[in-house]
Amino acid sequence: MNAGDRVRVERADQTYEGVLLPSSTPDHVVVKLDGGYNVGIDRDEADVDVLESDVYDVESAQDERSSSEIEFDEDLPTVSLISTGGTIASTVDYRTGAVTAQFDAEDVLRAVPDLAGMANYRGRVVANILSENMTPDVWRELAQAVREEIEAGADGVVVMHGTDTMQFTASALAFMLDTPVPVVFTGSQRSADRPSSDNVMNAVCAVEAAKSDCAEVLVCMHASESDDRCALHRGTRVRKNHTSRRDAFETVGSKPLGEIDYGAAGEDNEVTFRREHDERGAAELALHDGISTDVELVKFTPGMDVSLLEAAADGAEGIVLEGTGLGHVNTEWIGVIEDLDIPVVMTSQCLEGRVCDRVYDTGRDLLDAGVIEGEDMLPGTAKVKLMWAIENADDVADAMGESLAGEIQDRSTPWL
Amino acid sequence: MNAGDRVRVERADQTYEGVLLPSSTPDHVVVKLDGGYNVGIDRDEADVDVLESDVYDVESAQDERSSSEIEFDEDLPTVSLISTGGTIASTVDYRTGAVTAQFDAEDVLRAVPDLAGMANYRGRVVANILSENMTPDVWRELAQAVREEIEAGADGVVVMHGTDTMQFTASALAFMLDTPVPVVFTGSQRSADRPSSDNVMNAVCAVEAAKSDCAEVLVCMHASESDDRCALHRGTRVRKNHTSRRDAFETVGSKPLGEIDYGAAGEDNEVTFRREHDERGAAELALHDGISTDVELVKFTPGMDVSLLEAAADGAEGIVLEGTGLGHVNTEWIGVIEDLDIPVVMTSQCLEGRVCDRVYDTGRDLLDAGVIEGEDMLPGTAKVKLMWAIENADDVADAMGESLAGEIQDRSTPWL
Ligand SMILES: N[C@@H](CC(=O)O)C(=O)O
Ligand SMILES: N[C@@H](CC(=O)O)C(=O)O
Repeated sequence: MNAGDRVRVERADQTYEGVLLPSSTPDHVVVKLDGGYNVGIDRDEADVDVLESDVYDVESAQDERSSSEIEFDEDLPTVSLISTGGTIASTVDYRTGAVTAQFDAEDVLRAVPDLAGMANYRGRVVANILSENMTPDVWRELAQAVREEIEAGADGVVVMHGTDTMQFTASALAFMLDTPVPVVFTGSQRSADRPSSDNVMNAVCAVEAAKSDCAEVLVCMHASESDDRCALHRGTRVRKNHTSRRDAFETVGSKPLGEIDYGAAGEDNEVTFRREHDERGAAELALHDGISTDVELVKFTPGMDVSLLEAAADGAEGIVLEGTGLGHVNTEWIGVIEDLDIPVVMTSQCLEGRVCDRVYDTGRDLLDAGVIEGEDMLPGTAKVKLMWAIENADDVADAMGESLAGEIQDRSTPWL
Repeated sequence: MNAGDRVRVERADQTYEGVLLPSSTPDHVVVKLDGGYNVGIDRDEADVDVLESDVYDVESAQDERSSSEIEFDEDLPTVSLISTGGTIASTVDYRTGAVTAQFDAEDVLRAVPDLAGMANYRGRVVANILSENMTPDVWRELAQAVREEIEAGADGVVVMHGTDTMQFTASALAFMLDTPVPVVFTGSQRSADRPSSDNVMNAVCAVEAAKSDCAEVLVCMHASESDDRCALHRGTRVRKNHTSRRDAFETVGSKPLGEIDYGAAGEDNEVTFRREHDERGAAELALHDGISTDVELVKFTPGMDVSLLEAAADGAEGIVLEGTGLGHVNTEWIGVIEDLDIPVVMTSQCLEGRVCDRVYDTGRDLLDAGVIEGEDMLPGTAKVKLMWAIENADDVADAMGESLAGEIQDRSTPWL
């Protein structure tokens, strides 16, 4: 059994066929599957059969690969692929057999042959992290990179990002950027080495969305458990609502802005927008990337010690509360809030619906204590917005009450 | 215009007809509507027309009311109504025109004539608070009261509770009580003085559920925006998912246990259970009401200062993390978690789906740091359970991984 052999590898639950690649440790076999992906398998767990010896010249294939060049097609728009990490930009980690972030944007393009012919691509790596490790500094670098890509002529930008905190980064970019072209986040809930991976379809649909006329910050992910449609969500209204389903992302309190029917191989993908959105070219490119890193989101639950609010406020420039119901916290908290001289914004852990602090005593007392109502903003979006507003708005309270990037929706419930 | 006159009151958006009652301040008129409810209206905002003078002897009506007695019917089951406060137990506050908690259980029974004939009632007030002010001490008093009511012969218990934190109190009772009869929480999203109030239907359906064969802690609230059905949710799996809709409560990750078709006046309300549940009489009544008050729920969001985790853990007996995705936090947090010698349980802010920390590096490192996976438990339920387990379980980690009151569901996604 040598690198270059065609093999079949059997493991408890799965069978792989492909070409054996050189492996960095003797404990693993690495197989290049026919779809182009590599899989690392623990040697102890795997039965390997050589199907055909020496079918593949590994060295020359590696050379060919590194010298391959994608030709520019004048008739196609240019889409920038920016990679920040996450499953969509990852391959199998040979060391442990599980997923770590390893690809740069060019690798993704090679790993997803279906992207060929859709656009001319520019590739760029801004970070290579799982999105639980995202920071406001990286949001800023990303926003700057997006601006540069648009200045350099990109007709649309696709950001590959981990799914865990995609909604936070998308919101940050929505506040930081005035964009004349689509900026489309996409990711993957299932890694490339799994038959159910969503990475190819999501990437293809994201490129399609980046070519569309919707000049907003969007999130493009599976709209259903099938491989038939992607939904286009407004970045400030989207939420990862399931730990594992491919259609985990949902627009909260409304429908997605649009949808992409994923065409069968060779066919077109059809983009449909169902709601009003900013049109391509309407905004002039601008970047306002100031962001306060001293804002905390505090979720109130019964029995919580009010000293945690004090700890959060200590040294902070702003607080977002995730209250109960219409926007409440324990009455004991109200005096503490009153004493804070930083903006305190109320949102609801219900997630759907609007905060309204004029109905109950608790709410009215909170308003008297200076709390700013977060309308129907998602708590995470409100946190990002407050971080941004502190650095960019003339009047933070006014800015929090206005919709700047679709984060506040029109009242749908007349009585509230 | 005198107390006892029949009047029509017009205000910007609404017209009321009823009998003028004596008012405690000259700034308000108080009208008893035909349905039995009282409304307080700001005199400045209201146009009052006297339709008929002196139609009602206010004094004797008040006497009659306080001497009224409900007769015991041997053919009917006995249902205990326990009031803790919230909108369902509230009337209009004449002082401000808005809602504060004021009723005791007998008042509720009189305010909802539709309850008559369904059961013999026992009434009891455990608290009179808006549920944002609920505390673990009140959970305990409530659990004790429920036990006493069942010991005294109640065939079912209805708990009237504010909607804001109903899911937390219901979870607490689900862990504290082994109950041979239904314990049904209900509340109201719209107060009794509004035409769209849901209080009558919710109360009637809750009594119906209390008579059913499902001996679990349930939440009974509107199943749709119409007045046609209530859903019966398992207390540990339910969540208030909308700030204002009457059908705000939803079972997360599954369907409700059952449903009640609300019959037209005089007709029966039909109860249907669609999922397995504990049967009436199966469990022996028992109370385990120990509860640690030193557990904190910490929601992780990007940019959050890890010192807040340290502040939460300081003096705490346990921590529930609301992580991202499959159960992640920033890598920086892992060392801090490792140093804690209290149980740390991971849940997901996605809300739907199961935590699984064996997929990504972050997760595996968290498991190595001693984190307990919270399976598919709702973060709020996990907090209440950890508070309870610390006082009642032999092995906290084992208890957290087992379903004790339906809070953990069977794996529905085979790959996770
Ligand atoms: N935890 C990973 C999951 C993913 O990539 O989707 C991340 O958010 O980066
Ligand atoms: N804030 C109130 C709302 C209600 O009663 O439904 C409470 O939870 O008590």
